Amino acid sequence: MSLLKGACIIGQSGGPTSVINASAYGAIKTALESDCITKVYGAANGIKGVLEDRLYDMGMEDPAELAHMKYTPSSALGSCRYKLKDSSVDDTDYKRILEIFKKYNVRYFFYNGGNDSMDTCNKISKYMLANGYECRIMGIPKTIDNDLTGTDHCPGYGSAAKYIATSLMEIYHDARVYDTGMVTVVEIMGRNAGWLTAAASLANYKGNGPDLIFLPEVDFDLDSFLAKVDEIYKKNKKCIVAVSEGIRDKNGKYISEYGADLAQTKDSFGHAQLGGLAAFLADEVKKKTGAKVRGIELSLLQRCAAHSASQTDIDESFLAGKSAVEYAISGITDKMVGFERSYENGKYVCNIKLFDLTVVANTEKKIPAEWMNQTKDGLNEKFVEYALPLIQGETKLEREDGLPRFVKLKKVLASSEK
Amino acid sequence: MSLLKGACIIGQSGGPTSVINASAYGAIKTALESDCITKVYGAANGIKGVLEDRLYDMGMEDPAELAHMKYTPSSALGSCRYKLKDSSVDDTDYKRILEIFKKYNVRYFFYNGGNDSMDTCNKISKYMLANGYECRIMGIPKTIDNDLTGTDHCPGYGSAAKYIATSLMEIYHDARVYDTGMVTVVEIMGRNAGWLTAAASLANYKGNGPDLIFLPEVDFDLDSFLAKVDEIYKKNKKCIVAVSEGIRDKNGKYISEYGADLAQTKDSFGHAQLGGLAAFLADEVKKKTGAKVRGIELSLLQRCAAHSASQTDIDESFLAGKSAVEYAISGITDKMVGFERSYENGKYVCNIKLFDLTVVANTEKKIPAEWMNQTKDGLNEKFVEYALPLIQGETKLEREDGLPRFVKLKKVLASSEK
Repeated sequence: MSLLKGACIIGQSGGPTSVINASAYGAIKTALESDCITKVYGAANGIKGVLEDRLYDMGMEDPAELAHMKYTPSSALGSCRYKLKDSSVDDTDYKRILEIFKKYNVRYFFYNGGNDSMDTCNKISKYMLANGYECRIMGIPKTIDNDLTGTDHCPGYGSAAKYIATSLMEIYHDARVYDTGMVTVVEIMGRNAGWLTAAASLANYKGNGPDLIFLPEVDFDLDSFLAKVDEIYKKNKKCIVAVSEGIRDKNGKYISEYGADLAQTKDSFGHAQLGGLAAFLADEVKKKTGAKVRGIELSLLQRCAAHSASQTDIDESFLAGKSAVEYAISGITDKMVGFERSYENGKYVCNIKLFDLTVVANTEKKIPAEWMNQTKDGLNEKFVEYALPLIQGETKLEREDGLPRFVKLKKVLASSEK
Repeated sequence: MSLLKGACIIGQSGGPTSVINASAYGAIKTALESDCITKVYGAANGIKGVLEDRLYDMGMEDPAELAHMKYTPSSALGSCRYKLKDSSVDDTDYKRILEIFKKYNVRYFFYNGGNDSMDTCNKISKYMLANGYECRIMGIPKTIDNDLTGTDHCPGYGSAAKYIATSLMEIYHDARVYDTGMVTVVEIMGRNAGWLTAAASLANYKGNGPDLIFLPEVDFDLDSFLAKVDEIYKKNKKCIVAVSEGIRDKNGKYISEYGADLAQTKDSFGHAQLGGLAAFLADEVKKKTGAKVRGIELSLLQRCAAHSASQTDIDESFLAGKSAVEYAISGITDKMVGFERSYENGKYVCNIKLFDLTVVANTEKKIPAEWMNQTKDGLNEKFVEYALPLIQGETKLEREDGLPRFVKLKKVLASSEK
């Protein structure tokens, strides 16, 4: 192992989750406590903050205040959706990054994000190597979508899954309040992979779940959907359906576009986007069954409802950040920190495993077909066995006046320090 | 005090809340433990269950299981929206109720609901009196809308307010994740009174709240709304707006109908209801400011999210149910149990107070004008002082496998017992 002394940058990228800050905090805390790392910078809005020389000096924060990061949703440092060009096409950004790295003697770079962030890590790593600048670069994953390849699961997924399963259980009770008929359609995030929508089946495990679950992994047929709903509704007077926002028909067309099309042909004012998938499907059900219907969009609370985060997810996310720094200090570079699952005496254990950044960058992990039921409108016990350990434990989020106590950072810019 | 021995019926009516079962449990538990009350029946779907002789024998439930009712959302006994006619117009229902009361020797009737339920209590009470049938009748209020007259606040409001304030804080963080512009419109329940929407201002108290809040108590002007949003957006790049579903223009027309009108004129397929108020306003903002916009409907989770209920609300709701039974046993009848607030050494105290059923039945309590700011687009410290005590304490809801442990009742029908 070679000892590398210097500063580090930690950046966050992509959409928010309830626990991405737990990972960032794991990295920041470990870096601040390390002898090797001389300064800890948080990049404002990810790689954009590096390019624009907007780096926060994390050493200026009160350690007790910083600890609240672990329970604060969204990206405390700010995020971005910035994709680096290939350096062979345009190396402007890379030159600038190297300039900033040199300016602050940055020898460690930790990037906390999804697919694109791992790609960013990979590109920077290669450029630094090619230009003889010694720097250790590690990716720390996050995504509620849980679609990163390699890792058993992704930080952020457990909390979103817990929120979805809990909400479905509550909706189940709400939908049964009257003895009159009712069909409820719940729209859940996940454009290409059904992990989030599948989490609705955890409510089934508790006997309070949806009757039907439709994932983007399976071609969606509107007529078959309506027939299934109608059958259940006629039998039980109640039917709850969970649908992924990403469901598509056999030609690959998003069902969410059906409603927009209808509106488009009739509305010259550009109001096509009024109403989402849940509203459209609820409306179709109403026409078919005559039932009272309700469309619910779980909306972005499924990715930021820190008040109901999974403590397992929080702890694992923290561990991912911490491990990334520890591995880098020990000499590892150009890897993503991920999870590997094992069972000890039947008990779930989550271990850190390293993955090549290139493995992660360009594929999406889907729900295995054998985890679905035979009619492809629900999940079986294999999914439950997989997902249940990830949602265990209630968040230790501190409350103040009955409301969440989220972090308040000073955000002292390094460029403004003397 | 006259000792009255006999059975009791407890019924639930109207829309669900996170804590209506806490009240029912308070009543059921107290009744089961009373010497005076010989049998405790739960009416299936409120007064409908009485009319249809569907009464659950609550004595058949396992007491330990029953205790989970305190933390289970929606109406565990089932609810209804059934309005009794005046007995002078049609006394069929009343005759039937008296018949059932006689069949089971019902001498106590507790009805747990909103405005209409208090009206039902009042009508039954008068009919029983006129027909010389001794029976003590008490109303136990509930409504997330918090619009009942007399009582300081309503069971159910605190939990909904806590969910709304917490969600707004989380949305606030989510909306700030990128350094790009964004306008977020959050639609909150409350058709005629702004109590729920006003709860968004508790997030402001924590520095993480919406920039603008629009209540149904104030005439809504679309142009003025757009100008205000535009100004904030231009200044801060971010703007979060909380709007009540019940906002109306100066002619009394619901703003939610504006969008439907637009769609109506253009859509002959009957798709007018696609898209709600938030989507409509977000769309208008987009046209005006060019900003990226997002419309979020908090939807029915604000009334059933038991996982984030206020323990204060749960305890007070339980107390309301318990007190109703205790007062009835002591000889009181024809009253609604409500709350009166006092402060002891600056600390909020909630006391039980009795109200005439007639006082409650026909009026709606609005937000006092002096609790709003001068520009009528936000609340001031008077509202915060009022609402803050009601959201204190985290629910003691038990979790099992990381998910809520809601009650599972046997629901043994009294009519089927030997």
